[in-house]
Amino acid sequence: MRSRSVLKIIGRLLMMIGVSMIFPLLWAIYYGENEVFVFIASIVITFLAGLGLSEIRSNDEELRLIDGLGVVSLGWAIISAFGALPYYLSGTLNYLDAYFETMSGFTTTGATVINNIDILPNSILFWRAMTQWLGGMGIIVLAVAILPALSIGGMQLFGAESPGPKIDKLRPKIRETAKILYGVYLIFTGAQIILLLIGGMSLFDSFSHTFCTLATGGFSTRNDSIAYYNSPFIEGVITFFMFLAGTNFILHYSALRGKINYFKNKEFLFYITIILSTILVMTFTLNNSIYSSLSDSFRYSSFQTVSIMTTTGFTTSNFDAYPALSRIILLVLMFIGGCACSTGGGIKNIRIILILKYFYREIYKFLHPNAILSIRVGEDTIPEDVIKGVMAFFIGYITIFVISIIIVSSYGIDLITAISSVAATLGNIGPGLGLVGPMYTYALLPDFIKVVLMFCMWAGRLEIFTVMVLLVPDFWRE
Amino acid sequence: MRSRSVLKIIGRLLMMIGVSMIFPLLWAIYYGENEVFVFIASIVITFLAGLGLSEIRSNDEELRLIDGLGVVSLGWAIISAFGALPYYLSGTLNYLDAYFETMSGFTTTGATVINNIDILPNSILFWRAMTQWLGGMGIIVLAVAILPALSIGGMQLFGAESPGPKIDKLRPKIRETAKILYGVYLIFTGAQIILLLIGGMSLFDSFSHTFCTLATGGFSTRNDSIAYYNSPFIEGVITFFMFLAGTNFILHYSALRGKINYFKNKEFLFYITIILSTILVMTFTLNNSIYSSLSDSFRYSSFQTVSIMTTTGFTTSNFDAYPALSRIILLVLMFIGGCACSTGGGIKNIRIILILKYFYREIYKFLHPNAILSIRVGEDTIPEDVIKGVMAFFIGYITIFVISIIIVSSYGIDLITAISSVAATLGNIGPGLGLVGPMYTYALLPDFIKVVLMFCMWAGRLEIFTVMVLLVPDFWRE
Repeated sequence: MRSRSVLKIIGRLLMMIGVSMIFPLLWAIYYGENEVFVFIASIVITFLAGLGLSEIRSNDEELRLIDGLGVVSLGWAIISAFGALPYYLSGTLNYLDAYFETMSGFTTTGATVINNIDILPNSILFWRAMTQWLGGMGIIVLAVAILPALSIGGMQLFGAESPGPKIDKLRPKIRETAKILYGVYLIFTGAQIILLLIGGMSLFDSFSHTFCTLATGGFSTRNDSIAYYNSPFIEGVITFFMFLAGTNFILHYSALRGKINYFKNKEFLFYITIILSTILVMTFTLNNSIYSSLSDSFRYSSFQTVSIMTTTGFTTSNFDAYPALSRIILLVLMFIGGCACSTGGGIKNIRIILILKYFYREIYKFLHPNAILSIRVGEDTIPEDVIKGVMAFFIGYITIFVISIIIVSSYGIDLITAISSVAATLGNIGPGLGLVGPMYTYALLPDFIKVVLMFCMWAGRLEIFTVMVLLVPDFWRE
Repeated sequence: MRSRSVLKIIGRLLMMIGVSMIFPLLWAIYYGENEVFVFIASIVITFLAGLGLSEIRSNDEELRLIDGLGVVSLGWAIISAFGALPYYLSGTLNYLDAYFETMSGFTTTGATVINNIDILPNSILFWRAMTQWLGGMGIIVLAVAILPALSIGGMQLFGAESPGPKIDKLRPKIRETAKILYGVYLIFTGAQIILLLIGGMSLFDSFSHTFCTLATGGFSTRNDSIAYYNSPFIEGVITFFMFLAGTNFILHYSALRGKINYFKNKEFLFYITIILSTILVMTFTLNNSIYSSLSDSFRYSSFQTVSIMTTTGFTTSNFDAYPALSRIILLVLMFIGGCACSTGGGIKNIRIILILKYFYREIYKFLHPNAILSIRVGEDTIPEDVIKGVMAFFIGYITIFVISIIIVSSYGIDLITAISSVAATLGNIGPGLGLVGPMYTYALLPDFIKVVLMFCMWAGRLEIFTVMVLLVPDFWRE
């Protein structure tokens, strides 16, 4: 890794983060909050740190792939360190908690350590929502342009379809793709804000919730999350945009250009099938057990299913009090997550499809030892390299999951909390079950557990490989 | 599948099972129990059914691999149906429960539906222990000779090392290998019986517990399992033989011929490392929390670790009351299981090694895209086909696990019970956590759940593939 070049780029990103803090500053001024100075200080510190790093002298050669990896993995961690300043300087949280909350924001996880959100100043709430929105922007580019170029976790195939001109070098390509995707992201942002305003939400809340929907983040400005509004219309709007946010953005880009490809895409079909069948099962399970009418049962099931499956984590009900079947299904959905090239986390639907096809192929091959069978998705034959990447991703995901629950439970935390807190952070969902269920926060967990869960958010968000590569000594060679 | 030839062989196996019921019959006569007629009836029915099947006219051609598969998967299910007769005819259990208990026996799982074992007649207890011992014999041959020949789940490599003359045809090879392995199995059986007698156990109990140790089965003749004897010597003997039973029997065969290869075998080193480090962690975790002395803590930790890791399932303490860390570690051990070519269940140590190496290779390949890296274990290079089989096995194991816990929890069973009951049956351990913990049995579970868990035992014991192949329509073509 060329650490100078990497730090230089991270410096530029930091400057952008510093500048973006102007928006919460404006809200602080508008509402006359004491946090005006907090944000000014945060902006100055972040911007100057960024400026300092960006002035590092380097040969400024074209970045190699491995350097891109350094930018992504280290960048996410360093930016979170500065993004934590507003929470810390305002006295809202101690530094570790502030870092946790910011990592949870930038990774669009939505796990919170703040017990009482209702009393927070609006400027802090806005920054909290903005970390998710910015994180979502980062992820979209990461998922569509950077990770595929890096052949991470079998995603090369899906990046090959990325829109925009084919450019050989990494940076110009990222720039072009980013422009296109940000266009889509901004259009969705505008549309959702307008719809939420129509639904009767305040301008401030509309902005905040839109930011956290499109990033599949799930931070709310209310302790009761979306349940606060008790409005089927608002729930419907958010459900719809969570669903879009968990879908491949390349499909959205095509659709906005007039080519509706959704139902030709096997991953989308798988994604929507799982969502619809879960809603069906949950509606009937919850009817007569939790809710007294089929319509209520459908209303809460569909919101919660889409929220968890897309890894958003907004809540309209305490799903931890649901019957065992619904709880376990939601836990399983946490692992599946969104589609490739979306802001959703988890293993991703396309990988689940490939994993299952791999299994069936080996069974089939057993009966027909001489058959040469390639794995196909729709009309595409999937190269063996992609399959290997997917399998390795799956192993890495499960390995981190298992090691993390062992560590978490070493603090005497009950098994359901341990399992679900790791699943909910590694999959970038947010709320889990038990002590990290919808009625609680991550605040009471011991500090070291918070560090482990931050690692899970980070590793999950960066598709495992990007973070695991840091463990290979060769990576650190200049 | 040539169903006639397959049924013919299953018929012969049934006749053998019928004959083996003479041993519990002898105990029934010796103790003057009412079950004399139960066993006579069971023997007659089983033997005649076997005779009937073995008289099926077939061309008696050499069996193809696929037919071997049919013998194994269908055989296990059919034999259990007849092995259930003594429980059923004696009125001990209804037929479903009797089938569950027998499947649990022949698969050497050790999950029981009998709440009060202490009041059972000795003849029934002996048959119960014998199902495990016979199951263990079946598994050894399955694991060393049959599954590798069938290239099941990446086990071809390990079977290639199988002792005995190299014979091309399947049946003579199985016969030769079986002879050698049964020699080892019988020597261990004799040795353990003698040591348990020295430890003060009755002859009857020594036989029964030895049978269930070497098969890594875990049925006891006592409600309190091994805790009943409260003897460190007996616990030591059983721990030692459980450990041996979970080790590759080919290594034992070499050792008995004077070639000690244990510490040259990477899987054995991995297996012993996990066991020792778990004992270390658990001893310190349990000291001052559950036990007041380090020696007690070590005594119970070591027994329980070896019992769960080898997938035996004997208990000397209520490990479900242990702190969260110990419980989750035991749950993880249930997935790892024994070594290849042992009577232990689970995913198996060698597969875990290969899965982790696969992951590391993909990470490494990322940094060195042009490197051609094969996976090595010790001095052996592992062919890619083996790796693929292992990966498919892993996917199949996880898939069955996930689907089963969803089904189990659909009956409103709590998550810990659902997760651990599936883990404990799929891995052929026996006791789990929660409602299937060491203080409880599987008796109270709804019938349909018992059927699901029986499927798990069967699929887990037959290394997933053997059972999953039944789902491919081509398999059923004559």
